[in-house]
Amino acid sequence: MIIGTLGPEGSFTEKAAKQWNDKAELRYYSDIMETVDALTGGEVDYSIVPIENSQDGSITITLDLLMEQELQIVGEIIVQIRHCLLSKGRSGDIKVIASHPSALAQCRKFIKKNFKNIEVRSTLSTSQAAKLACESKDIAAIASRESAHRYGLDILAEDIQDMNENYTRFIVIGKNIPPATGNDKTSIIVYLEKNRPGALYEILGEFADAGIDLTKIESRPTKKILGDYLFHIDLKGHIEEGIIRDTLGRIRSKIGIKILGSYPAAR
Amino acid sequence: MIIGTLGPEGSFTEKAAKQWNDKAELRYYSDIMETVDALTGGEVDYSIVPIENSQDGSITITLDLLMEQELQIVGEIIVQIRHCLLSKGRSGDIKVIASHPSALAQCRKFIKKNFKNIEVRSTLSTSQAAKLACESKDIAAIASRESAHRYGLDILAEDIQDMNENYTRFIVIGKNIPPATGNDKTSIIVYLEKNRPGALYEILGEFADAGIDLTKIESRPTKKILGDYLFHIDLKGHIEEGIIRDTLGRIRSKIGIKILGSYPAAR
Repeated sequence: MIIGTLGPEGSFTEKAAKQWNDKAELRYYSDIMETVDALTGGEVDYSIVPIENSQDGSITITLDLLMEQELQIVGEIIVQIRHCLLSKGRSGDIKVIASHPSALAQCRKFIKKNFKNIEVRSTLSTSQAAKLACESKDIAAIASRESAHRYGLDILAEDIQDMNENYTRFIVIGKNIPPATGNDKTSIIVYLEKNRPGALYEILGEFADAGIDLTKIESRPTKKILGDYLFHIDLKGHIEEGIIRDTLGRIRSKIGIKILGSYPAAR
Repeated sequence: MIIGTLGPEGSFTEKAAKQWNDKAELRYYSDIMETVDALTGGEVDYSIVPIENSQDGSITITLDLLMEQELQIVGEIIVQIRHCLLSKGRSGDIKVIASHPSALAQCRKFIKKNFKNIEVRSTLSTSQAAKLACESKDIAAIASRESAHRYGLDILAEDIQDMNENYTRFIVIGKNIPPATGNDKTSIIVYLEKNRPGALYEILGEFADAGIDLTKIESRPTKKILGDYLFHIDLKGHIEEGIIRDTLGRIRSKIGIKILGSYPAAR
């Protein structure tokens, strides 16, 4: 089994991949879009990408790829995220702090408190920032403890995320719907139009009437008109269960819906 | 009247400020947090910050400041956003593309198509990127046409945003609720707990029963537990109207709610 993951080595996505399957061969890609393309292009059997963080919220590029492409979610993984400040230099040398935008957002207060007027540089992954920090004593990376070992960097500060409880949820995308386990989730997208503000209420009513629990509801712009939204909804249950299938069928008769997959819940 | 805006000069926020009041004195701040602090610290009478873009979605730092601080929304402004690629160098010279993360996201396809393996650098505003591009021929900024003139940069490409229809909505924060005009909006935050997945449905039911139109509903993590959300909701009407006041009162008796303000609608 080959899994595509966000690289280079030492990324939190790699950690999620190992947590999901510690025997699979890993292939590393430079950004989320390429990691997803590796699956659709047949280079890998599964791809793993981050979808939301408890502090910073959704990874919007992942939500948008789920909207734009025909992808199947087959699993989820929750990883605790503990960020470190890594560098070859000392604290006083640092002129640039580099990391993935989501990691930078998770450490916003730490950066603001300790580094006034520093240049903040976005990278495609935390481990790419660690690799960058090898090049110069001026650069510090926000990345995992594992990245420090992997890239020979010193840990200048640990647990620098603004909130102690910091988790990222990753999704596994693949080709086949895994069978129901009794503790599953189903992910869908529903499309709402500006002219029908009551539509979300109707849909939530269908779930409430059927006694289906929602674990997530997240809006995104449709990218067409300011004020037009779609909603990413996760619910408890598997598409093979009659109640889920029937409810989604009723919703489909009213409004645009895309089923992203059913998969074992991580918790 | 003094308005705090995101600087330096030439930012889209400055454009929004001039659109809202072209006679006010403007003061420029380096990031959204400082622009908001200028108001709460009494340095300015109003502050203007971006809140959502039709393509990239919400400016999450603004949503989070509305959650964390006691701020009053007193107005909104919608500005069409047309991005340019600006530099002192030629296209072939460019090694770094700098801009605000939201602008970079709005031009993601343009960058990916035209510049393979380029370094993408985040700045605190588009105009700060333009200022940075003055320093070196290696650097291009994604910023407004006005920034090209202001900073003496060449326009290498125009209208480079991925979607032609690209709008940003800005909010004005201030101290007093403006009187009802007959075409107003009210912004609120409601807090939902994981253990009560039906609560959003109940709240939407209150609005539906009262015939109140919602123009926006946007989830954000509470930053405490993965899966706990709050919702930013905008609705048509002014808090002085009986139907709005009564409905919000009923919701308040069931669930946590924060009223951010009532203000004239931009459209």
